[in-house]
Amino acid sequence: MNTERKLKVALLGCGSVGSEVARIMTTHADDLAARIGAPVELVGVAVRRTGRPRPGIPGDLLTTDATALVKRGDIDVVIEVIGGVEPARGLITTAFEHGASVVTANKALLAEDGPALYAAAEQHGADLYYEAAVAGAIPLVRPLRESLAGDRVNRVLGIVNGTTNFILDKMDTSGAGYAEALEEATALGYAEADPTADVEGFDAAAKAAILAGLAFHTRVRLDDVHREGITEVSASDMASAREMGCTVKLLAICERSADGTSVTARVHPAMIPLAHPLASVHGAYNAVFVEATAAGQLMFYGPGAGGSPTASAVLGDLVAVGRHKLNGTRGPGESAYAQLQVAPMGDAVTRYHISLDVADKPGVLAQVATIFAGHDVSIDTVRQQGKDGEASLVVVTHRAPDSALRAVVGELRKLDTVRDVASIMRVEGE
Amino acid sequence: MNTERKLKVALLGCGSVGSEVARIMTTHADDLAARIGAPVELVGVAVRRTGRPRPGIPGDLLTTDATALVKRGDIDVVIEVIGGVEPARGLITTAFEHGASVVTANKALLAEDGPALYAAAEQHGADLYYEAAVAGAIPLVRPLRESLAGDRVNRVLGIVNGTTNFILDKMDTSGAGYAEALEEATALGYAEADPTADVEGFDAAAKAAILAGLAFHTRVRLDDVHREGITEVSASDMASAREMGCTVKLLAICERSADGTSVTARVHPAMIPLAHPLASVHGAYNAVFVEATAAGQLMFYGPGAGGSPTASAVLGDLVAVGRHKLNGTRGPGESAYAQLQVAPMGDAVTRYHISLDVADKPGVLAQVATIFAGHDVSIDTVRQQGKDGEASLVVVTHRAPDSALRAVVGELRKLDTVRDVASIMRVEGE
Ligand SMILES: NC(=O)c1ccc[n+]([C@@H]2O[C@H](COP(=O)([O-])OP(=O)(O)OC[C@H]3O[C@@H](n4cnc5c(N)ncnc54)[C@H](OP(=O)(O)O)[C@@H]3O)[C@@H](O)[C@H]2O)c1
Ligand SMILES: NC(=O)c1ccc[n+]([C@@H]2O[C@H](COP(=O)([O-])OP(=O)(O)OC[C@H]3O[C@@H](n4cnc5c(N)ncnc54)[C@H](OP(=O)(O)O)[C@@H]3O)[C@@H](O)[C@H]2O)c1
Repeated sequence: MNTERKLKVALLGCGSVGSEVARIMTTHADDLAARIGAPVELVGVAVRRTGRPRPGIPGDLLTTDATALVKRGDIDVVIEVIGGVEPARGLITTAFEHGASVVTANKALLAEDGPALYAAAEQHGADLYYEAAVAGAIPLVRPLRESLAGDRVNRVLGIVNGTTNFILDKMDTSGAGYAEALEEATALGYAEADPTADVEGFDAAAKAAILAGLAFHTRVRLDDVHREGITEVSASDMASAREMGCTVKLLAICERSADGTSVTARVHPAMIPLAHPLASVHGAYNAVFVEATAAGQLMFYGPGAGGSPTASAVLGDLVAVGRHKLNGTRGPGESAYAQLQVAPMGDAVTRYHISLDVADKPGVLAQVATIFAGHDVSIDTVRQQGKDGEASLVVVTHRAPDSALRAVVGELRKLDTVRDVASIMRVEGE
Repeated sequence: MNTERKLKVALLGCGSVGSEVARIMTTHADDLAARIGAPVELVGVAVRRTGRPRPGIPGDLLTTDATALVKRGDIDVVIEVIGGVEPARGLITTAFEHGASVVTANKALLAEDGPALYAAAEQHGADLYYEAAVAGAIPLVRPLRESLAGDRVNRVLGIVNGTTNFILDKMDTSGAGYAEALEEATALGYAEADPTADVEGFDAAAKAAILAGLAFHTRVRLDDVHREGITEVSASDMASAREMGCTVKLLAICERSADGTSVTARVHPAMIPLAHPLASVHGAYNAVFVEATAAGQLMFYGPGAGGSPTASAVLGDLVAVGRHKLNGTRGPGESAYAQLQVAPMGDAVTRYHISLDVADKPGVLAQVATIFAGHDVSIDTVRQQGKDGEASLVVVTHRAPDSALRAVVGELRKLDTVRDVASIMRVEGE
């Protein structure tokens, strides 16, 4: 080991993740030094408020001037755990310009502007690592970027947001409605005071964009990801799912088209069969299924968030990037050579579960069936239940393009005999 | 991309795995070239019998002289998929001496002689990669070697042999005995004609040695791994497991001791609760649980064997090693700095499920309980069932050192009132 040379690290942000990173750097200093090949020296910690108590962090390391810190010029690795687009983007770019490699957990920024960051890293011969950005502690970026590099990934199907999984799991096991389950998640600290980023699917969509990029070696922008949140999932949707032997999960789905020339990325709640391994991912856990031509079906499971699991991923990256720094080498950069077309949601092929409230009179089923047939959407099952002149019709389709399914729903809404399209949900994982 | 420079690859072995490696190298040539940064050129394929039909492999590449192939001197990467200790070991060493890096799937050799191979790679500035050696297609070596490098792994608990998992799963779901289930596994191609390496736990033990080395940064030899196979697991063991809400799996368990100074590695059948994620790993699938201080519990799941999944892992390594070759760099070498003591099986802490056939008379339970107490093994539950002057006693213990449990069983066997120790099985995963 090189004890003369120290690996100088600057930490930007010292909140849930940053404080754990700093703590583990101290408690596991010997292990990290042995694994990197030189001791790690934390040279500065940028925060917003220097006055707060930060146990274990020497006061003289704290600064509010993050820019000055990354401009020092003697820093080997900058760890960015502030979050958000700015000032994180500017700081990371400045860090590259001043000779540092970067480890970040910032999915929002990567989904927004990943290619520009990769380009800056490339230009300055630096590493950009971000294992923590996708599914917290679960090693997923490295397997996709490296382990499966000799294979062809066709599909990534995952639960990548712990907050929404906690809420949906709660609704499923207790019969609670969305509002009640959200309240419990907030009380237990699984949801933030403003839960929008999670429950509206923004967080999952950012991860889907990153995953699709890695899986298909193609740039996928956040805008390319179709996004629906869980706020409209009702207790009765959950009950219908149960009747079908399914549960409801918020899924991030990245798929290569059957002809291999395009990809889609989408985030939405969907029914999945209880027998599917993702159905038994409970609480705030995350899990990601990866289907590759040669490898077959792989699954990665673990805590998708939390200060300490996320710090584990950050430090794993620090070891890799630190070793590269000491040896004057670099890890893999962006791989976007495939440049597949990113197709719109309408091209995604999926199944629908549709509940209709209809008039209880002869001919309604025929009318409905004609509309499905008119858009080439074939029906798997229909269940009809009558009650006091009203009836409900539950239709489950076979796989069809999302655009065809949406057109069917549009026409159903116009039928006089259809009083309400009570719910529409996609069915996945079969 | 560098199209002048080609990455020259020699393939040693062209059986289940090798033929798939060669096939994917051809079908995915463009992808591999883009990911590596230069086209891959297969310059030779060593086999035993050149006369066999090898679809897709140009006849002039075949040779029976593997040694001459690795001595050519112009080879960038040697892929060793012959298997076994010799000639694989000699060929790999020669490959390093002649400037090549090596990718191998050979768990037997790595468990037998890993440190010497690592040393040879180090000496010649080459890479030694072996993702395929542990759990087929499941990315496990890279996550342990790299993603968790900033964390402390405390436990690895896995199903790492597909043949035995298929057999035990069959016994569990059909009530079949071991012999019948083995027969079916053989008929379906899940077990080899001579199933010894699988059913006696040798294959799993080799993987346990490799996993323990990676997890604890400590050399663990094959001889250090306590090994019991599944040949003595009976239909009635399976039934007892069910009664306890458990199933039986062949587990590879690598653990750090509570005080952190030593490690144990063992392979044996064990009961695990049905609610444990490993209990729902069916058929020939593999899955590995990893518990780390910061990351918490992670699980990796997928096909643990088969030509094509294993080839996926081999090719992922080829991409990494190929990139290093082109850039004149190297990946991580052996990490054995921790040098923890490898403790014997007696020190492993576990629980026992013991079924005794005893005389149905007063005082027997007291006698039995005294023996447990004498070795400081505390009893969790006892179930007693009488039938015609005979009785059975099922004891489940709390966690205790394996040596204490074995001493208890030794004394129980000597009791006049104990007619038979009908079965002993460890209970894990709680
Ligand atoms: N928390 C998780 O479970 C988790 C999981 C995966 C990924 N991530 C990602 O990790 C990153 C950090 O998340 P977090 O939960 O640790 O956030 P957090 O608890 O809100 O911490 C943010 C930190 O950044 C500091 N900061 C904010 N603005 C700053 C500025 N302009 N200059 C310098 N410092 C500034 C804050 O300073 P003060 O301490 O003074 O407020 C705080 O220390 C985000 O990108 C997030 O998406 C988090
Ligand atoms: N199969 C799996 O699912 C799997 C999974 C994980 C790891 N692995 C590992 O992968 C390796 C290969 O396994 P496999 O199943 O592909 O074995 P296999 O089907 O038996 O193939 C072995 C190949 O090596 C060739 N060979 C044998 N002795 C040789 C020698 N002295 N010189 C040159 N070539 C020789 C054979 O030639 P011929 O073709 O002329 O007989 C054959 O092509 C082993 O280390 C195994 O443990 C296999």
